[in-house]
Amino acid sequence: MSAGTVYGVGLGPGDPELLSVKADRLVRNARHIAFFRKAGRPGQARTLADPLMPEDAIELAMEYPVTTEIPLTDPRYNEILSAFYTDCTARIRALTDAGEDVIVLCEGDPFFYGSFMHLYERLRADVPVEVVPAITGMSGAWTATGAPITWGDDILTVLMGTLDETTLTSQMAATDALVVMKIGRNIDKVKRALHAAGKYDKAWLVEFATMPKQTVQRLSEAEGKVTPYFSIIVVHGQGRRP
Amino acid sequence: MSAGTVYGVGLGPGDPELLSVKADRLVRNARHIAFFRKAGRPGQARTLADPLMPEDAIELAMEYPVTTEIPLTDPRYNEILSAFYTDCTARIRALTDAGEDVIVLCEGDPFFYGSFMHLYERLRADVPVEVVPAITGMSGAWTATGAPITWGDDILTVLMGTLDETTLTSQMAATDALVVMKIGRNIDKVKRALHAAGKYDKAWLVEFATMPKQTVQRLSEAEGKVTPYFSIIVVHGQGRRP
Repeated sequence: MSAGTVYGVGLGPGDPELLSVKADRLVRNARHIAFFRKAGRPGQARTLADPLMPEDAIELAMEYPVTTEIPLTDPRYNEILSAFYTDCTARIRALTDAGEDVIVLCEGDPFFYGSFMHLYERLRADVPVEVVPAITGMSGAWTATGAPITWGDDILTVLMGTLDETTLTSQMAATDALVVMKIGRNIDKVKRALHAAGKYDKAWLVEFATMPKQTVQRLSEAEGKVTPYFSIIVVHGQGRRP
Repeated sequence: MSAGTVYGVGLGPGDPELLSVKADRLVRNARHIAFFRKAGRPGQARTLADPLMPEDAIELAMEYPVTTEIPLTDPRYNEILSAFYTDCTARIRALTDAGEDVIVLCEGDPFFYGSFMHLYERLRADVPVEVVPAITGMSGAWTATGAPITWGDDILTVLMGTLDETTLTSQMAATDALVVMKIGRNIDKVKRALHAAGKYDKAWLVEFATMPKQTVQRLSEAEGKVTPYFSIIVVHGQGRRP
């Protein structure tokens, strides 16, 4: 086992005050801070953590070799990403072998559709890893709508916009409360599925939840708008309430 | 509108370090602190917040008139609970009308199957209410299992153990990743549904997630154990991973 520990630190939905006390403490006291980002961008996680990071922290930027340039279905996608995560793991491992702790900044909750999981699976046999859960982006989104997401026995289903239209439609039809993430270029397909499932008129679109540029609107009133990849669609449950 | 504000403050899954920085600050500076609890018990939320609460904070305990003594299907259940929430609302409203802010402590995330929502709906027209999202109990539970809950395009479904067995089974069969909450006396029904959906052997039982008495075990190895109402069953998704 490495002498150093890796901390997968969830940063939550975007508001720096919504970091956990533990995440806040770990980032403020960090020596080595790693984070994913798209090449050439400052990076969402890095930007969020900026006000907390010690001036002398050593940064380890892990820049995705591809994001949406190659379709997920292309076999090269997995190959390229796998090599990337293996390389990131080696860079982190070099630090922990030297006895250094490494904080890995994670948007949202690390174990909920996060990139950190790919490092975690590669590190866990050889390096002590501690995961700090966080407020999910979807909690930020439903709170922003000003209405509870689930009541009583409501069923909540979380879907990725990258799923095929048939699956989206049947899942949407079979649930009470709904969250759709990874929307971006899938928005038209997601809208068709919502229509087919009878939930389009009840859907809300939340962009940049809990951040200064947050927007909340009915999806039906957002026609024609470009939606960023990290926007979230929310349909509220209407279950039992005394 | 009342002059005072109500803050519905999510406390997260149980570890005091997993409160958000904002929740921590609000509780530490509170003058009036309200919380739900079962009569005669200290109350989970109150206990969690105890180390943070100012010595001179004024407490407003809201004690459920019933919890599991009357079945949910009994019409009296809704009547009694409705009267209770109306009474709680009046007590809080008396404070905010006098210009006082009131912190309402909420286990988990306030808008995710929480009791606070019943106050929120009754207060929001007349009192400024701010909701502070939090780490959900389920995030605490899946983090405790040491394995990510969702990968790639995995579908996540959240079910209450109080649902009927047919619904539980069909929903469990149609999802990749699964969370079941409100288990308690529903445990045998939930287990039958997991068996029927082919997910029993992959299910984990987490009790008291993130708390000192946390336990994590395969559900199949927890036979015969009494499970507290706030235990959570987790089945991990196995989706795309480079």
